[in-house]
Amino acid sequence: MTYCVGMVLNRGLVFMSDTRTNAGLDNISTFRKMHHWTVPGDRVMTVMTAGNLATTQAVISILDERNKAPDDRNPSILAAPSMFQAARIIADTLKDVIAKHTASGQQASAFSATIILGGQIKGGPTRLFLIYPEGNFIEAGDDTPFFQIGEMKYGRPILVRAYEPDMSFEEAMRLLLVSFDSTLKANLTVGLPFDYHLYEADSYETGHEGRIEKEDPYFATVSEGWGDALKTALTRLPTFELG
Amino acid sequence: MTYCVGMVLNRGLVFMSDTRTNAGLDNISTFRKMHHWTVPGDRVMTVMTAGNLATTQAVISILDERNKAPDDRNPSILAAPSMFQAARIIADTLKDVIAKHTASGQQASAFSATIILGGQIKGGPTRLFLIYPEGNFIEAGDDTPFFQIGEMKYGRPILVRAYEPDMSFEEAMRLLLVSFDSTLKANLTVGLPFDYHLYEADSYETGHEGRIEKEDPYFATVSEGWGDALKTALTRLPTFELG
Repeated sequence: MTYCVGMVLNRGLVFMSDTRTNAGLDNISTFRKMHHWTVPGDRVMTVMTAGNLATTQAVISILDERNKAPDDRNPSILAAPSMFQAARIIADTLKDVIAKHTASGQQASAFSATIILGGQIKGGPTRLFLIYPEGNFIEAGDDTPFFQIGEMKYGRPILVRAYEPDMSFEEAMRLLLVSFDSTLKANLTVGLPFDYHLYEADSYETGHEGRIEKEDPYFATVSEGWGDALKTALTRLPTFELG
Repeated sequence: MTYCVGMVLNRGLVFMSDTRTNAGLDNISTFRKMHHWTVPGDRVMTVMTAGNLATTQAVISILDERNKAPDDRNPSILAAPSMFQAARIIADTLKDVIAKHTASGQQASAFSATIILGGQIKGGPTRLFLIYPEGNFIEAGDDTPFFQIGEMKYGRPILVRAYEPDMSFEEAMRLLLVSFDSTLKANLTVGLPFDYHLYEADSYETGHEGRIEKEDPYFATVSEGWGDALKTALTRLPTFELG
């Protein structure tokens, strides 16, 4: 399984992904699920993937190759005139990769994958898309300002409650790490390290990026502190009165 | 879908269930998913059900009928010498009901259901069981002091973090309502009203029981207050420092 979140803030875009993949519970590996393409001064795109690893690696490799040698039939996302067109290219690529494997007689669901795409191209706003295995996609807006893919349920309540569009990057990282910690505590197939990328709107360059490692002292503080913070929060609510 | 939680506290057992059932998103009804059997001074048993409504209603009806006219082949849970034996009777009944429907050629998963059983029989301790559709079951212990059935993921993080065996019933109700509220906010197929039963250990009588209705002012306070409480809790954690 996987857990990735992409979030639209007033000051930019925030991405975080875990790195655990597994084929069965005793075959666990670490793979990067977040990828960037940056043309400084022109565009920044970040992609996060969940689902069949062979499918998502194939999609990323195809996008990479086309960036080096695009042609008319197979356009490069680095040449796309808008984020919307980039989302179409990635969605078509994803659908094609799944269709190719399915043609050999396997069920499509076995090769399924979902992708979050976010970024900005000069002349346009920051945009965030959720791309489905069927090759269609939706865009984040004011009502739905973030997307989650993978094991999303455990970490969702805190996002729904605490997300604010005017958060700072520092606050967004704190919120995401709490959401990831809740997921981690409940599902063995989501694991550290976590990759992140904080893209500042209108900067057109790769933003703060990095990896939260297993021994990260800040994550340890958040993880330990959150349990106490939750208990304190609970005690601030009035108790139930037995009739 | 459904959401039910059964919890072992030092002072007794706590049960809460939602009441929404649906066959498709536009066919929603309210059904009781919590049932009690009490023989004052001797035993108290509470059952909560999740899964196919025809299956769970059949199980409850069969148990009820046997309580009125038990025989050797079909023992009544009111005659069971221990909670363990009661769990076996319910588990066998559940398995039989599912097997009967499956015999007509349908897949077993379509008729599947899961049951939480908790209670106490004179001479024994309070016990809590999770009964699977296959007819086997597990018991709660110090390491796993509560069971959830149905749509359990959204409401789990707060239970994992805030459960304490020495909680009062009032505190447990507050915790459960926060857990139910998180689930409600995320899944349309879990809905108010909620039924609850608070069984006091060694009382051998039905405890505080009731229903949290849609307009319940305490639930409204918890639901509104929890969002603010979570945000406050989050701000008490140190923020991330960008490198």
